[in-house]
Amino acid sequence: MSFGACPIPIADYPVVTLAHGGGGRLTRQLIERMFRAAFDNEWLAEQHDGAILEAGEGRPVLTTDSFVVSPVVFPGGDIGKLAVCGTVNDLAMCGAVPRYLTCALVLEEGLPMELLWRVVSSMGATAKAAGVQIVTGDTKVVARGQADQVFVNTAGVGFVAAGREVRPGMVQDGDVLLVNGDVGRHGIAVLASREGIEFETSIESDCAPLAATVQALQAAGVELHGLRDLTRGGLGTACVELVGERQTYRLDEAAIPVRGDVRGACELLGFDPLYVANEGRFLAIVPERDAARALEVLAEHRPQPDAEPARIGVVDRSAPGRVVLRSVVGGERPLDLLSGEQLPRIC
Amino acid sequence: MSFGACPIPIADYPVVTLAHGGGGRLTRQLIERMFRAAFDNEWLAEQHDGAILEAGEGRPVLTTDSFVVSPVVFPGGDIGKLAVCGTVNDLAMCGAVPRYLTCALVLEEGLPMELLWRVVSSMGATAKAAGVQIVTGDTKVVARGQADQVFVNTAGVGFVAAGREVRPGMVQDGDVLLVNGDVGRHGIAVLASREGIEFETSIESDCAPLAATVQALQAAGVELHGLRDLTRGGLGTACVELVGERQTYRLDEAAIPVRGDVRGACELLGFDPLYVANEGRFLAIVPERDAARALEVLAEHRPQPDAEPARIGVVDRSAPGRVVLRSVVGGERPLDLLSGEQLPRIC
Repeated sequence: MSFGACPIPIADYPVVTLAHGGGGRLTRQLIERMFRAAFDNEWLAEQHDGAILEAGEGRPVLTTDSFVVSPVVFPGGDIGKLAVCGTVNDLAMCGAVPRYLTCALVLEEGLPMELLWRVVSSMGATAKAAGVQIVTGDTKVVARGQADQVFVNTAGVGFVAAGREVRPGMVQDGDVLLVNGDVGRHGIAVLASREGIEFETSIESDCAPLAATVQALQAAGVELHGLRDLTRGGLGTACVELVGERQTYRLDEAAIPVRGDVRGACELLGFDPLYVANEGRFLAIVPERDAARALEVLAEHRPQPDAEPARIGVVDRSAPGRVVLRSVVGGERPLDLLSGEQLPRIC
Repeated sequence: MSFGACPIPIADYPVVTLAHGGGGRLTRQLIERMFRAAFDNEWLAEQHDGAILEAGEGRPVLTTDSFVVSPVVFPGGDIGKLAVCGTVNDLAMCGAVPRYLTCALVLEEGLPMELLWRVVSSMGATAKAAGVQIVTGDTKVVARGQADQVFVNTAGVGFVAAGREVRPGMVQDGDVLLVNGDVGRHGIAVLASREGIEFETSIESDCAPLAATVQALQAAGVELHGLRDLTRGGLGTACVELVGERQTYRLDEAAIPVRGDVRGACELLGFDPLYVANEGRFLAIVPERDAARALEVLAEHRPQPDAEPARIGVVDRSAPGRVVLRSVVGGERPLDLLSGEQLPRIC
């Protein structure tokens, strides 16, 4: 993706200064020249304290995420793309059609102006691709050493039509667990980039907006009983968070797609790929009768051409409240939440 | 305000660790024990990726602000109270009834757990007082030295009924400019606290939610042509941002209320009180015929008992696009945006 030249003259303003966050002349220059260029829409043009929106069909849905990923630019994306995808995807996981985003930046004094442009133009491009508008925002600047380059918060509003709401608690016994592609790319791509580790093959983040995929599943008549994007904490955490007190998610390790190079990197680094973050992968829990159709839709909407959707498990009541993994060699073990932190600043 | 004991056992978890942001067991503990206790509502209990809301009357309004104020606790408030008031007030300035907030935290490793509890319980208490629900959130933790204690982002959703929208561009010639109290307290209170400056009197932040005041103005039949809260950049910046290309805001310096101790502190520190941040003050622009009634309503809804509302100027076309201040000694000078940063990390 190419973003064009930075609209702020770099010769005059090579880096972000405290005055860019002061609410005065330089803040206005950032908003008018950079943010409006990147996010171009009628709401920003109005320069109001908030954005007065059009109501969509159904109930409004609200979500938020802050992003602190390091490095800011990584193979397959950057913090801007991530911030748009992450919030769009949270809305999609509720069954909603994402419509509007906010963009709130905390910048460290000295941040290269070109890097800021890269981040916001990436946000604008990703928002356009995902069919959402970035309608309002905020910029704060803190002194050197009080933040690390740039933190991005996005909140999002979407609308969910009656009958399309997806909530925890709708999953039924006999349902099938599907994923829309192999797991672990994002976490390994970011970590490798941060630590300067090189692999034989190039591992890029799977970061992608997923709302169109969810809408395609709905349009195909697939009953969606559960949706969860596999971000921080990965597939394992998502399953443990989602499983109800009375049900059991039984996962088949052999069926969970992990790319060979990602698996190798995980072995090398001591990570379990089931707990590594993804940013373009989700779990869809559907009735058995809809599973084949859902897999077809997922195959038609791959976030990356080589992302292979898969059926990875079933729901029953054999061990209430647990997620049980049948390993490749045949044994079974329960999955749980991690007690430590394996990959800080991965999103 | 008293917040009760921290619901996380301090002996076991005296400070925030990277694992509190890992999405695993400790993140869940924070959410379940601390955030749900502070923000208690049905949406958080659902533990979903987003909050499915009830639509309100009229169009949805969306806004966001990040808060990086230092120190985190200051006379008259803390970053949590500020984060709720700031976003509630941005919605109110659109004419909307605030309903739902998000809470996204970026925490520095080592943040005292008691301080985090103070911040989130203050958010909960302020949200309750302002009649809004904190329905969804996010927590990230970065390593020591990569942020400064705690940054808070709040996004907010409200609803504005037909005919109650307030937007830039509605101001008419002959309108009157009102403020709901004296200006400059917040900025001076925070700066004095940060720098350890003591004044003879105690200067506390004016931080307060303003939505009930705006609703009271609407209920009293006051036609609201312009609203702007006087946050970062103060009254001067708000006027310059709001004035249209064809109109002139004429301010009467003698009529702008500034408390004696705040004025003294400004003189000592070299600040112009018109550019010092407030967090519970707003500009209301109304037709002449509604001015007296509006002042009565403002007097009935003082953010602090000693906040004195005032009529501070008028709108005409004498100097298109400008804000002109008639000084106490009689001369006139145009106000403009500040070109530097006078008070970093004031909100």
